[in-house]
Amino acid sequence: MGARSLVVLLFLMFILSFSSAYQGKKKQYKPCKQMVLYFHDVLYNGQNAANATSAIVGAPQWGNLTILADKFHFGDVVVFDDPITLDNNFHSKPVGRAQGMYIYDTKNTFTAWLGFTFVLNSTDFQGTLNFMGADPIMVKTRDITVVSGTGDFFMHRGIATIMTDAFEGEVYFRLRVDIKLYECW
Amino acid sequence: MGARSLVVLLFLMFILSFSSAYQGKKKQYKPCKQMVLYFHDVLYNGQNAANATSAIVGAPQWGNLTILADKFHFGDVVVFDDPITLDNNFHSKPVGRAQGMYIYDTKNTFTAWLGFTFVLNSTDFQGTLNFMGADPIMVKTRDITVVSGTGDFFMHRGIATIMTDAFEGEVYFRLRVDIKLYECW
Amino acid sequence: MGARSLVVLLFLMFILSFSSAYQGKKKQYKPCKQMVLYFHDVLYNGQNAANATSAIVGAPQWGNLTILADKFHFGDVVVFDDPITLDNNFHSKPVGRAQGMYIYDTKNTFTAWLGFTFVLNSTDFQGTLNFMGADPIMVKTRDITVVSGTGDFFMHRGIATIMTDAFEGEVYFRLRVDIKLYECW
Repeated sequence: MGARSLVVLLFLMFILSFSSAYQGKKKQYKPCKQMVLYFHDVLYNGQNAANATSAIVGAPQWGNLTILADKFHFGDVVVFDDPITLDNNFHSKPVGRAQGMYIYDTKNTFTAWLGFTFVLNSTDFQGTLNFMGADPIMVKTRDITVVSGTGDFFMHRGIATIMTDAFEGEVYFRLRVDIKLYECW
Repeated sequence: MGARSLVVLLFLMFILSFSSAYQGKKKQYKPCKQMVLYFHDVLYNGQNAANATSAIVGAPQWGNLTILADKFHFGDVVVFDDPITLDNNFHSKPVGRAQGMYIYDTKNTFTAWLGFTFVLNSTDFQGTLNFMGADPIMVKTRDITVVSGTGDFFMHRGIATIMTDAFEGEVYFRLRVDIKLYECW
Repeated sequence: MGARSLVVLLFLMFILSFSSAYQGKKKQYKPCKQMVLYFHDVLYNGQNAANATSAIVGAPQWGNLTILADKFHFGDVVVFDDPITLDNNFHSKPVGRAQGMYIYDTKNTFTAWLGFTFVLNSTDFQGTLNFMGADPIMVKTRDITVVSGTGDFFMHRGIATIMTDAFEGEVYFRLRVDIKLYECW
């Protein structure tokens, strides 16, 4: 190998060292972790205190605390502590709890604003994930965001695609949550 | 080129390969995306049901759900679904909705805590941005944070500088939001 | 140095340039900033208006706005503006305010959901930090997340380990917050 070819090789390596550094800056577009979970919400209606997992705690002037308000429930604030399961069966052993609140926030359709945490405590996962975002309930699948985590999910971020998997009147609903984490530490 | 100068060159490249890797770790301080938007809040006061875009849904013991409370509205929780426009005209065609809540949270001045989402749906932007932060309302411009996004704003983060662009009594206000995203994917 | 050993050296550098780039992708597991702060919450109970720093603003049907509700306060929404101090003395000069809300969200134990901001204004720190997460109050230390920041904490993220440092009945509590930021800009 002569000096000239060495210079060419050095130049190529020089380019490579930059492009590999650039890789360091680029983010990952395939999830680094993914899981599907379900959670189940039973809203307190004045008669189901034993089974209820959530309750209306704020309402607009025209509402009350046992019946979701007129105008697409606009202004109702609900606090919840819902069981999380690995499948869509309400009676499956929970792997954690979904805890936080949702707020109905539109007057002319069903839309909610979500702020809540998955507290996971199973053999597979120990830690929490925090969710935030707008939920246009009538759309089949909608994306909210995973803004942070602790434990196994330390500093993680990503997207959760949610789907209303079932609902019964205004008392029970079940959400399917497809969690895709794109920043893992 | 002799062996000695090659060693020097190799050493320089070695340094460069590290420094370029370091670039991979450094973050961008100029926004990777920037936009200015306005949103318009009309608070329900018991008489403007048709026009109102927000409502008091929680209040302290000394408050109620149609008039903002004494003590700088401390404790009032407001849910909103406000139109977002490209300019400061309430009647311009909305490019999306600002949905979420604000909470007055100080007894001796006007300060709010904000948790909300921009749901953008225009030719320019399709996606959501989630905001969180303290809003010292009496300060001319104040920074809150963009913690996450979906769609065109997948995994984005940044800062939003907000400014009260107009207000009329305690029923209408307009916020100018200068969004600067520093992490784009 | 012969051509052969140069090729070996080049190969080693080639490997190194990748591994150093990989460093660029890896995150830091030691905090880039750390601080310990305390905040003090005095809940309004109908008789302490002058001293109270927080108030119940939402409650379930079985609750009210001056006494924390039955069933482990499930559903109570509290808005607060609490002084932050450098030590555990309520009367120390505040270095900022903790502003936001907490929600009691479990029926069979004391658990809260937190969404709040530290507004820091001292010689050491100028800026805000935003917190979100589940708080299993009965656990000695628990992790919540720092999702964003402004000012000196522009784009920062991390973990806050909180500990109930003191409490008196249901009116006063003090939290020790050990903030560890792992993403600094």
